Amino acid sequence: MNHSDSQPPVSNEQLLSSLQWRYATKAFDPARKIPAATWSALEEALVLSASSFGLQPYRFLIITDPGLRARLLPHALGQQQIVDASHLVVFAARTSFSAGEIDRYIERIVQVRGGEAAALNSYRQMMAGSLLSEQERERVPVWAARQAYIALGNLLTSAALLQVDACPMEGFVAAEFDRLLDLSTQGYTAVVSCTLGYRAAGDKYAGAAKVRFPASELIRRIG
Amino acid sequence: MNHSDSQPPVSNEQLLSSLQWRYATKAFDPARKIPAATWSALEEALVLSASSFGLQPYRFLIITDPGLRARLLPHALGQQQIVDASHLVVFAARTSFSAGEIDRYIERIVQVRGGEAAALNSYRQMMAGSLLSEQERERVPVWAARQAYIALGNLLTSAALLQVDACPMEGFVAAEFDRLLDLSTQGYTAVVSCTLGYRAAGDKYAGAAKVRFPASELIRRIG
Repeated sequence: MNHSDSQPPVSNEQLLSSLQWRYATKAFDPARKIPAATWSALEEALVLSASSFGLQPYRFLIITDPGLRARLLPHALGQQQIVDASHLVVFAARTSFSAGEIDRYIERIVQVRGGEAAALNSYRQMMAGSLLSEQERERVPVWAARQAYIALGNLLTSAALLQVDACPMEGFVAAEFDRLLDLSTQGYTAVVSCTLGYRAAGDKYAGAAKVRFPASELIRRIG
Repeated sequence: MNHSDSQPPVSNEQLLSSLQWRYATKAFDPARKIPAATWSALEEALVLSASSFGLQPYRFLIITDPGLRARLLPHALGQQQIVDASHLVVFAARTSFSAGEIDRYIERIVQVRGGEAAALNSYRQMMAGSLLSEQERERVPVWAARQAYIALGNLLTSAALLQVDACPMEGFVAAEFDRLLDLSTQGYTAVVSCTLGYRAAGDKYAGAAKVRFPASELIRRIG
């Protein structure tokens, strides 16, 4: 697909107006659900997130069961979004990597693109050097969590463009989420979560001016 | 601004088509520069990124000086995007937080929204508990880096929607970037970077099929 001769799907103004519209939704309308087609697009957007080496060291848990959400609530500072939002996504990042998992990724590349796994040997070596060596191994959870945050950033922007409200949430006890979602035994840990749906009419934060440090401070131009 | 009665600025299909179009650009056309209005929109998108507590514990360094980019190149595995892309952004995240910086953020909230700083005391206490206590202090760099990655995810999606190519880059020596960009003395460290511009006609990766694990594996529906 080559877009280079066509117009971008959004104008600068539309992009910025969507990002201005976005805010960390404190009160969701519990009665409004995200339509299936919209949710399906957001799941596909998550899958299309960028990740280091393309390795996708995460899983996205979509939690709709009200009972489970009620059990997660006390471990998320009682933040009501957990139960009121249409959808809850928990981002689970890998805590370790094995040679077998790198091989499985190589196999997936071959499956999608064709060619021979042997042709990807130097790529495999590079990944192994980064993820399996004694000295790098302890950085794996840090690295994997960061990749999950790219997906979170992508999801927030994608949702805003589809006019779906969202609230990213770090305030939860990861060990309890891991236990309730059975993550540890699978080599994952919950690193961040995001509730999505539609703002309640009365959410006072919806109208609040966005607080940012001046661009002149956040952005430093060099050269 | 209330979008709820209007159509979203993009359709599901347009969003996904942009995310499909996006790829980690290996070869940029060194002759093509991002137009000023487009770049300005991307900077504003960066500023509008979500962050924990709204604290924006990062700076975005926009490096256009060719000499500096040439000096960064050897510390970025010689990846040619560093010098060929129209723009280079280095995401610098805070390595520590002080009570004074939390106060400055409270002042900024009052400046933007009005009201009294005293009314935000419980908010200030919550941030202080998270960022200044002995036991939490060592998590600050981890937390700040993750916020920078939300901004990266936002930037990648925003750029795709404006039909600007990008390549997120983790492969650099942070200590050397910090030194060349004079970051350490200011309490920041380079955590990730991103080059942006337009793909070269000959970049063979542009046409390669996107490799993702099956959605049924990456996404787990619970409930």
